[in-house]
Amino acid sequence: MERIERRACFGGWQEVHRHRSKAVDGEMRFAIYLPPQAAQGNVPVLYWLSGLTCTEQNFITKAGAQRYAAEHGLAIVACDTSPRGEQVADHDAYDLGQGAGFYVNATVAPWSQHYRMYDYVAHELPALIEQHFPVTKKRAISGHSMGGHGALTIALKNPGRYSSVSAFSPIVAPSRVPWGEKAFAAYLGSDRETWRAYDAAELVKTANEKLPLLIDQGDADEFLHTQLQPGLLQEAAKAAGHPCELRMRVGYDHSYYFIASFIGEHVAYHAAAMHP
Amino acid sequence: MERIERRACFGGWQEVHRHRSKAVDGEMRFAIYLPPQAAQGNVPVLYWLSGLTCTEQNFITKAGAQRYAAEHGLAIVACDTSPRGEQVADHDAYDLGQGAGFYVNATVAPWSQHYRMYDYVAHELPALIEQHFPVTKKRAISGHSMGGHGALTIALKNPGRYSSVSAFSPIVAPSRVPWGEKAFAAYLGSDRETWRAYDAAELVKTANEKLPLLIDQGDADEFLHTQLQPGLLQEAAKAAGHPCELRMRVGYDHSYYFIASFIGEHVAYHAAAMHP
Repeated sequence: MERIERRACFGGWQEVHRHRSKAVDGEMRFAIYLPPQAAQGNVPVLYWLSGLTCTEQNFITKAGAQRYAAEHGLAIVACDTSPRGEQVADHDAYDLGQGAGFYVNATVAPWSQHYRMYDYVAHELPALIEQHFPVTKKRAISGHSMGGHGALTIALKNPGRYSSVSAFSPIVAPSRVPWGEKAFAAYLGSDRETWRAYDAAELVKTANEKLPLLIDQGDADEFLHTQLQPGLLQEAAKAAGHPCELRMRVGYDHSYYFIASFIGEHVAYHAAAMHP
Repeated sequence: MERIERRACFGGWQEVHRHRSKAVDGEMRFAIYLPPQAAQGNVPVLYWLSGLTCTEQNFITKAGAQRYAAEHGLAIVACDTSPRGEQVADHDAYDLGQGAGFYVNATVAPWSQHYRMYDYVAHELPALIEQHFPVTKKRAISGHSMGGHGALTIALKNPGRYSSVSAFSPIVAPSRVPWGEKAFAAYLGSDRETWRAYDAAELVKTANEKLPLLIDQGDADEFLHTQLQPGLLQEAAKAAGHPCELRMRVGYDHSYYFIASFIGEHVAYHAAAMHP
């Protein structure tokens, strides 16, 4: 593991590291914000998953989350959205291939060789973070759009692993919207039964642990009625008796201006769950 | 004038506009953040000047200033750092030509045709803002690096125009450092006497209005000892009896992580000056 960026920020440190990942069989980068409290002792960790086209940089430069992490004493880890590099399969479209890993373990060639972002985020990355940084084993997870899908599905699939989960503008039912159908057909193949394992609106039907789902969604989001449709998750959660709070935000779109406006509330929510 | 972006942000609106500028004889873009209070009445304006290579986008996407502007009820206007376009003179270097206007009125060809950023920022832009947006005539000005130089010099050259001025990591003595020497030689010519009109460490010697100068500077800034040298302004201000507060910030560099960490203090400072 090699540290490639380190910048003072709100009394703590915003760092970027690269390392060899077994899960994706290639180099991966992640960002970690260490709040001032991490100089005195171990702090809990919020994992952040970004959306289509993003790297580890988008969240750390645009969301303004460090201020809140410093206030509440938690670290934030933001990883890349796919494996990268010349040897890694790719596609011309922005919504498939590099920058669009969809947080699944691909089972179909050529994607299956490197596109194992589910294993990376759910298992390899937390183990790496907990080995090398001053953090506790308390974890929370959140994300935006494709990353909101990642956060919801990874939390639902791993009961007990996360203290809390939230999402901004998530793709809640990828099996039923164009972004998800395209990606899952490529990464998982044509058998739609296999898609259910990565679909929050399906997973919520059978989740044993009723970890509350917190979602913020702008009502001026250009993808709301086509790709996102948070009502599909809300309905499935209600039918399953799974707590789900959907907060519609009037006038907000799909951008980081939306995330920046409400990330403080999400950081406070996760901090309360992890600092009992 | 045409609005080309409008995004909800912290209860207000982050907008970007383009318009035909007389000062630079070409199209210019600027960003304006209108806080929630602007829906009820006129608000004062903080003008922000960015550094080398920046457009109007850098500050609005990376500084996180909207939260503080919304808290304090002030608008923030961030403009581009030079004229732009195929017909505008340019240079291969990042520190001359487009993206590097240095907030002067160029007097030497080919720069003199469009590079009149001093007139644009000091006169044309505020007049445009005050004509078209719900703002008062209370103004403050701040900036980063080359933009810190711009803020300090424009405030010093226009007594009574600004309620307050501040800067992050400013170039305080451009006549005596490589960035400034290169730009001023190109834009203003070889007669160094003409450079004094755009050099904060010179202007402070004769400023009638003793508007306090507030400067934040990271001590891990890679340009501190070569290009910035804030002590040169501090000494000149002291000799002139001009109030100047230089706050050295341990561990901080030249990046937007530094600006984001302290922009809240600057917004509060300007709000206090403009909301008497």
